[in-house]
Amino acid sequence: MVADIDVHTPIDAPDPEDPVFALHRGGKMSITATVEVADAHDLSLAYTPGVARVCEAIAADPEVAHDFTWVSNTVAVVTDGTAVLGLGDIGPAASMPVMEGKAILFKQFGGVDAIPIALATTDVDEIVDTIVRMAPSFGGINLEDISSPRCFEIEQKLIERLDIPVFHDDQHGTAVVTLAALINAARLTDRFLEDFKVVISGAGAAGVAITKILQSAGVRKIAVVDRAGVIHPGREDLNDVKRWLADQTVDWARPGSIADALEGADVFIGVSGGTVPEEAVAQMAPDAIVFAMANPHPEVHPDVANRHARVVATGRSDFPNQINNVLVFPGIFRGALDVRATRISEGMKLAAAQAIADLVGDDLSETYVIPSPFDPRVATVVARAVTDTARREGLARRPY
Amino acid sequence: MVADIDVHTPIDAPDPEDPVFALHRGGKMSITATVEVADAHDLSLAYTPGVARVCEAIAADPEVAHDFTWVSNTVAVVTDGTAVLGLGDIGPAASMPVMEGKAILFKQFGGVDAIPIALATTDVDEIVDTIVRMAPSFGGINLEDISSPRCFEIEQKLIERLDIPVFHDDQHGTAVVTLAALINAARLTDRFLEDFKVVISGAGAAGVAITKILQSAGVRKIAVVDRAGVIHPGREDLNDVKRWLADQTVDWARPGSIADALEGADVFIGVSGGTVPEEAVAQMAPDAIVFAMANPHPEVHPDVANRHARVVATGRSDFPNQINNVLVFPGIFRGALDVRATRISEGMKLAAAQAIADLVGDDLSETYVIPSPFDPRVATVVARAVTDTARREGLARRPY
Repeated sequence: MVADIDVHTPIDAPDPEDPVFALHRGGKMSITATVEVADAHDLSLAYTPGVARVCEAIAADPEVAHDFTWVSNTVAVVTDGTAVLGLGDIGPAASMPVMEGKAILFKQFGGVDAIPIALATTDVDEIVDTIVRMAPSFGGINLEDISSPRCFEIEQKLIERLDIPVFHDDQHGTAVVTLAALINAARLTDRFLEDFKVVISGAGAAGVAITKILQSAGVRKIAVVDRAGVIHPGREDLNDVKRWLADQTVDWARPGSIADALEGADVFIGVSGGTVPEEAVAQMAPDAIVFAMANPHPEVHPDVANRHARVVATGRSDFPNQINNVLVFPGIFRGALDVRATRISEGMKLAAAQAIADLVGDDLSETYVIPSPFDPRVATVVARAVTDTARREGLARRPY
Repeated sequence: MVADIDVHTPIDAPDPEDPVFALHRGGKMSITATVEVADAHDLSLAYTPGVARVCEAIAADPEVAHDFTWVSNTVAVVTDGTAVLGLGDIGPAASMPVMEGKAILFKQFGGVDAIPIALATTDVDEIVDTIVRMAPSFGGINLEDISSPRCFEIEQKLIERLDIPVFHDDQHGTAVVTLAALINAARLTDRFLEDFKVVISGAGAAGVAITKILQSAGVRKIAVVDRAGVIHPGREDLNDVKRWLADQTVDWARPGSIADALEGADVFIGVSGGTVPEEAVAQMAPDAIVFAMANPHPEVHPDVANRHARVVATGRSDFPNQINNVLVFPGIFRGALDVRATRISEGMKLAAAQAIADLVGDDLSETYVIPSPFDPRVATVVARAVTDTARREGLARRPY
């Protein structure tokens, strides 16, 4: 064992001029005790022997845990490192900076204590079993950056086995914030979601979840496009998830390229990282809506899209209408934890999207269909939408 | 699903007068961001798109993670809730207050960020697999309150499978601090450890680990006693661990009760929660040393023990010589994390015990053989003992 060890000196930042590395030195988060242990008396309350009385009370009534431990304010941010940002399968260790970033956003915007957990396995059942075993330590599970289609199965199995909220942010956070922006784009252009023809580029976690939430919100004509073109029932290369997408879109979708699909479409939603030629955008219907959300390179540059579309949004902070799921996950878990919701329902997601959309109010314009990620009202209204819906749907275990 | 839900109002403290519950409301710890995310620029550094550069650097060289994430300062405090304090198998949820208490002591005394992880399984291999899969998220693993003899197998398997420190505090923390006190008791009474006859009451995690560390420190005559009396090779009721204890103690141990064993013994170490009659203490050798560490009820009351013994220690803060493993685990992990030690070696434990003992210095007396848990020097000297030993033994992956 000894012979295997490399002795390293501390690493210098790969680029000492890069402020990102300066900011990341030592990590981005730490633990803080919320009680003082200054002397033997304090120790006898916070630790032995006093702590035993809290343990015994929980053993007698598990509900006690939710008021007298940190569990019910704590979420595990779990990844296997297989679909990290646009970087792909970089593994658990390299995913940690993203998980820490997520955790500090949970705290800042939602007051939620979030713990990054990067797993050294990519096996669906191993991931599920591991999370189920850890679950007594947490009030909720936020799945993150797990590649498609495994992410769907992992989330579904966890929902079935756990009675705490499980939320794959790359799916549902993206879906909720996209729907919020689309609700406002419809209002701005005086149309109904039900009448939209929507083309989604990307059949991964985000594309599938956006398809589902748009259907729940009433959209009836959706075509999903992957690298091989429109996903339609005639294709032989479809996995289960894509076959489901093909079945859903059969009424409207025809075989063809993304350019074919966009002809006459009202809405383009890009979550693929691919590219859309200007000519295709030009063929869209009047008052076209383009959400080119790939980061850092939108599927079509907003300056180009603006020549042809009425509303243009991206995932970037340096253009108007940034569609960022930091608008969603802190408030979703804040609300779910506050009422100890057993799960995150479709109704909660729809209510959250509507609440985000409603914040824009009378300021609605082509360049303001979605609130800023730093709008301090957002997490509060999202949390409220979740708690109200949880109560209405009978998913709340405690009043707020 | 809906029909199953009980709606609870928030729990009142089981005893509203009890300051323990007032202190525990909301739990004892929280997450703090160590970087500010006040605007879009901050977000672009701490999260997307900037964070991707740190991810890529780690993917290219995993060593980068240790300077630019919180992992290398973070320890998982893992339990299955089977041996919590003196309460026994109360399950994972009820163990959380103890794990949180441990976590805040890690922070306060060692500056270590510790995360409580209570597992919903008691199966050895499931526990091991779960921890191995979580390991990329942590710089070390502190096992806690896992019942004997499973704790031995779990620790051993984890040490074999992980290259980060694994430390079962109920074993080794207790063993190190006990040895520290015994070193000073020997010095006070001008004797060598090698000459001591030692009786240990309790053959669980602590008793076994104390036996091992005392042997490493030179003690040759150890008899371990369980509920059925002295553990000796003639007994038919021994599991593997107790058979090992019986083999080790064969030279000295004779069949009999704890009273038989204590006749002429120099040292009694109680980690059992049983009781020792005064008559048995009275039969010990001159200058007897009694460490009655069961909490909250010592095996023999210190006032009683003091009638017959020269040095008396307990686990309680309201008597002199409190033997408390908070003297050990924060410094052990502080040191191990600082040099990225691959494991906690026997040499590190011995060095830590000696370092704790040495702090007492010229103030050594019958009522001061071990520093106070609040002595601010302790964690520093323990950490230094660990880092020095790690380097000497070739277990350090980075200079301090």
